[in-house]
Amino acid sequence: MSLGEFDLIARYFARPTCRAALGPGDDCAVLALRPGMQLAVSCDMLVEGRHFLPTVEPRRLGHKALAVNLSDLAACGARPLACTLAIALPRVDEAWLEGFSAGLYALAEAHGCELVGGDTTAGPLTLCITVFGELPVGAALLRSTARAGDEIWVSHAIGGGLGDARLALEAFRGQVSLPGAVFERVRLAMEQPQPRVALGLALRGLASAAIDVSDGLLGDLSHLLRRSAVGATVDVGRVPRSADLAAQSLALQRLCTLAGGDDYELVFTAPEAASAHVLEAARGAGVAVSRIGRIEAGPGLRLVDGDGRAVEPVWSSFDHFRA
Amino acid sequence: MSLGEFDLIARYFARPTCRAALGPGDDCAVLALRPGMQLAVSCDMLVEGRHFLPTVEPRRLGHKALAVNLSDLAACGARPLACTLAIALPRVDEAWLEGFSAGLYALAEAHGCELVGGDTTAGPLTLCITVFGELPVGAALLRSTARAGDEIWVSHAIGGGLGDARLALEAFRGQVSLPGAVFERVRLAMEQPQPRVALGLALRGLASAAIDVSDGLLGDLSHLLRRSAVGATVDVGRVPRSADLAAQSLALQRLCTLAGGDDYELVFTAPEAASAHVLEAARGAGVAVSRIGRIEAGPGLRLVDGDGRAVEPVWSSFDHFRA
Repeated sequence: MSLGEFDLIARYFARPTCRAALGPGDDCAVLALRPGMQLAVSCDMLVEGRHFLPTVEPRRLGHKALAVNLSDLAACGARPLACTLAIALPRVDEAWLEGFSAGLYALAEAHGCELVGGDTTAGPLTLCITVFGELPVGAALLRSTARAGDEIWVSHAIGGGLGDARLALEAFRGQVSLPGAVFERVRLAMEQPQPRVALGLALRGLASAAIDVSDGLLGDLSHLLRRSAVGATVDVGRVPRSADLAAQSLALQRLCTLAGGDDYELVFTAPEAASAHVLEAARGAGVAVSRIGRIEAGPGLRLVDGDGRAVEPVWSSFDHFRA
Repeated sequence: MSLGEFDLIARYFARPTCRAALGPGDDCAVLALRPGMQLAVSCDMLVEGRHFLPTVEPRRLGHKALAVNLSDLAACGARPLACTLAIALPRVDEAWLEGFSAGLYALAEAHGCELVGGDTTAGPLTLCITVFGELPVGAALLRSTARAGDEIWVSHAIGGGLGDARLALEAFRGQVSLPGAVFERVRLAMEQPQPRVALGLALRGLASAAIDVSDGLLGDLSHLLRRSAVGATVDVGRVPRSADLAAQSLALQRLCTLAGGDDYELVFTAPEAASAHVLEAARGAGVAVSRIGRIEAGPGLRLVDGDGRAVEPVWSSFDHFRA
């Protein structure tokens, strides 16, 4: 006999909660905030064939579905508190559910983010996670507060960079051929991104503005510039990339680093005087950060190479209705 | 040129917010709670062809997608505060978006529930709304706190009852033929349910337990009984039904009222001594409530008719993976 909806929730998605005032199993979950704290909320929907390939390991998918949401909390400087999961499944596949929930809970527990409720239904494979974080009143990192003169930074793995997820996608699409070990490494970057939660917390009161890189560096940076009513110059040669990506053609390097998508790094701005503190914050958070440009009063995003020559921005950001 | 993802959000889903500390347009929304308040959270996912028919008017669908979530807040006794919307759309259809967002915002504004963020992507039509409500610490109505001797009540429209939504579904399925005006009325019950938010608020401190009726009265009441570790006897003749439903066969009346689904009424329990207050609370909330049975110490749900004779419970609750 197949597992019913309620048994499925009970078996895979109802681990006991500690901090929530009321966890899964009632009409609502109930969360308490500590005095002086506000709630940060974000939600993302992932659709099979669009945000992930049908071949992805369920454990990695469980990780990624939560990671992309935690990345939004990180960009806001919020500490993860709880999440809800709504999931449409074409069928009840217990091995899949086992892997998916294990991947989700592993990342959730690593970040103290309790699964407090959700919904399960039949339908084309679709995941929707809403995350809740807390942050002191007025402490949220915003997109709209970058100032002319600020330096532009981007986070990345130590020894790594942006664009590996896109390189993996190009390999899946047959556009590039990679040695097996390289493919496995960049595939992991695509399928199991690490949200920069600790960095986001460390940047509170330090960064002047922040956004997470989910649709491509230039596209997401452009959102920040528009919302802040400023412009910027970015030195494309300074955008960090892994040794594996640096071994590819310059055109592919630029596509992947500047318009790659699925990086889940933070791009943020800070006054030049704060640069030592920024580097210290990154060290404390166990990640690297690279300075890639500067905010300017004039609107628009200008790209230059290492010699200061203009680079044509031929890459556009990802748009789900134009892709 | 087709509308892109960001224009789409800006045009249809980014009305200014008043109460949220930070509304749509950043990585996260930020909500503040008043001192002494907790946050109630619930989320529901609706899939085309399963939770709604492709023929539903988009305005009604926008209403319903939020209504089913507000019904969860109502069952908890929480006051609506905000919501997020994640939506997968097969294509950008501006007339559809116009109607859908109008229906959603109309209900949201009626309940002071601000749309503070969300996500939009391409994919099979799927809606996921997460709602946030506030309630005083410890005031949540729970499923787990019914006591032997309590009376069991169910809410309904004045002059109406349970089961009209199911009657409409049976008509859509060709299982029953209804006069045009009757069909339009029960179709409205199915497509535009009214969440019992005011009643939920009025039942704080009065009801001993509550749950909303989304999958059918008997199924949802059974959840409440299991969570409270009690049983109940329900007089099926006392379950309220509209005159239109009462004109159908007894078998259809029982199917629709007891296992109908999509009612979005509240079933709740209260001590007998509180019955006058319950009636007063309902009057104040502009809805009717009917006493349909009593909680008992022995587990299980027993059904009787008006003469006290046992009625066989042949109807099962809706299960998305067994339907």
